[in-house]
Amino acid sequence: MKIFKPFEVIREELLKAEEFSRELLDSKVELVLRAGGYILDSGGKRVRPGLTIIAGKLVDAPLDRLIPVATVMEYMHTATLLHDDIVDGAKLRRGRPSANTVFGNDVAVLVGDYMFAKAIYVLAVYGGEEVLKVSAQTVQDMAEGELLQLEKIGDVNLTEEEYFDIIYRKTASLLSTCCEVGALIGNASEEERRALRDYGKLIGYAFQLVDDAFDYISEEETIGKPAGNDIREGKVTYPLISALKKASEKEREEIAEILSSVEPSREDIERVRQFVLEKGGDRETFNLARDYVRRAKELLSIFPDSPYRRALNEIADFIVERTY
Amino acid sequence: MKIFKPFEVIREELLKAEEFSRELLDSKVELVLRAGGYILDSGGKRVRPGLTIIAGKLVDAPLDRLIPVATVMEYMHTATLLHDDIVDGAKLRRGRPSANTVFGNDVAVLVGDYMFAKAIYVLAVYGGEEVLKVSAQTVQDMAEGELLQLEKIGDVNLTEEEYFDIIYRKTASLLSTCCEVGALIGNASEEERRALRDYGKLIGYAFQLVDDAFDYISEEETIGKPAGNDIREGKVTYPLISALKKASEKEREEIAEILSSVEPSREDIERVRQFVLEKGGDRETFNLARDYVRRAKELLSIFPDSPYRRALNEIADFIVERTY
Repeated sequence: MKIFKPFEVIREELLKAEEFSRELLDSKVELVLRAGGYILDSGGKRVRPGLTIIAGKLVDAPLDRLIPVATVMEYMHTATLLHDDIVDGAKLRRGRPSANTVFGNDVAVLVGDYMFAKAIYVLAVYGGEEVLKVSAQTVQDMAEGELLQLEKIGDVNLTEEEYFDIIYRKTASLLSTCCEVGALIGNASEEERRALRDYGKLIGYAFQLVDDAFDYISEEETIGKPAGNDIREGKVTYPLISALKKASEKEREEIAEILSSVEPSREDIERVRQFVLEKGGDRETFNLARDYVRRAKELLSIFPDSPYRRALNEIADFIVERTY
Repeated sequence: MKIFKPFEVIREELLKAEEFSRELLDSKVELVLRAGGYILDSGGKRVRPGLTIIAGKLVDAPLDRLIPVATVMEYMHTATLLHDDIVDGAKLRRGRPSANTVFGNDVAVLVGDYMFAKAIYVLAVYGGEEVLKVSAQTVQDMAEGELLQLEKIGDVNLTEEEYFDIIYRKTASLLSTCCEVGALIGNASEEERRALRDYGKLIGYAFQLVDDAFDYISEEETIGKPAGNDIREGKVTYPLISALKKASEKEREEIAEILSSVEPSREDIERVRQFVLEKGGDRETFNLARDYVRRAKELLSIFPDSPYRRALNEIADFIVERTY
């Protein structure tokens, strides 16, 4: 397994989590092993277990509880990916065919449920009430985030507040929970718990902002999915919200029509894309993401310098550095 | 709300659970309220909360914990129905359009996840570790049961053991968990806990056996779904397994071909149905269900006579009496 650079400091712990993950995906049902293995093997960076472990190490969390809990944060994430791919009708995930394409929607729903249930079981054994409450709240948030996004498809009047509510639930909530759960396992003080939770939230916002900006500038080859995807699906994200602030009434109407059409043409998608780039919507988005990253790092100043604090700083920086 | 007759003894508690359920389905997301409300309002008998409450009352469980926990057993069930309807591509549920037909697969997946998460949250607050472990295990079981069933579609060599493994996971596991959870909230003795858990399991087997028999004899008008559904979908159930024991080699081959065809004709389905009825597969299935019900009631003899014990006996009887 290739280790994501900021996670070098927890290499051993992460390998233990990987081992625990494999043992946990144990079922007499062939389809669980195949579909579960397929998605777990698809080469994610293990950002969520990594964050949980680092946050835990920062406050001396005992490894025998930290490793299992960190491991199942990836299970919760994976379950969500499986279900979101059904919602999006996604064909690709991390550059290879998505699990729902290979195994069908039915298997993707059920294996997602299975992984979710495994996660809850492990949290009940190793986590305790507070960890379970925070985690269950996040699963609610993630489902609500996707549903809100569905409700708002094609709506160019989406406010910034609504956008941030959606990306909090979709992305920031789980990253925040990973950090908070690490803190809880380590019996962190209220102040430390809050700092870690908010750090996770802020890098979550930054991460999704950058992701949304990429959708306007990326080429299929570099990030494994085509540019203009959000436009095609009628998803209004920050780059567009920001560009629309500078739009004329006529431009706004034109964009609204394209966004709300069921199947916009390639030219229409390109027109929206160019509009956003011309108005600097991508730059504004990166700037905002950088600001979130700065604030996230500031929160860490309550902890003394350590390899773990440095790792969290690195992770925050990585989010915006991957833009160049 | 019309109360299912054996639940008259817990009428007040069930109404409280209903009230808690409504308060719990609270979300700022319109789709959660609409789709969640749609499925909760579809007029189930509340068998799962009812069983949980009666089992709890039998061992003096405190109401302030029993009601919330019982309520979310229906949430877990509802979430499973939402997801199973996607798997089955079901068009009808309890005689009206299924939620996935009305709201789409995407909404059904996500609202199911939301309800699972709500259930876990409530269990974390009111249930405790053991309740959570048992409940999470059941969610795993239910997903694995559906997956196993998918794997075995069209396989006439399905053994009795495999069949019972599938229906344990699909149906008996949750009913068993409801009874066990009631026992846990009431601090039941090991013996009482085991008796209630096994009672739930046995009536679960009986319930599914009867359901599977109905698929061979029912008319669309009486149970809200057409007869021969399992045959059409290639699901091998007990009536067929039992009939196949008495089949000639030629009959077996003919059945195997029909079961494994993607879209069997109406005549083919009718041929399998008649074959099962002629060999007495439906009668064998009812007989076995009756035997499970008898054994379930026997387990209750460790409890002194009470309105709650009588209610559990009535529920068990109801399962097989609804056949006439």
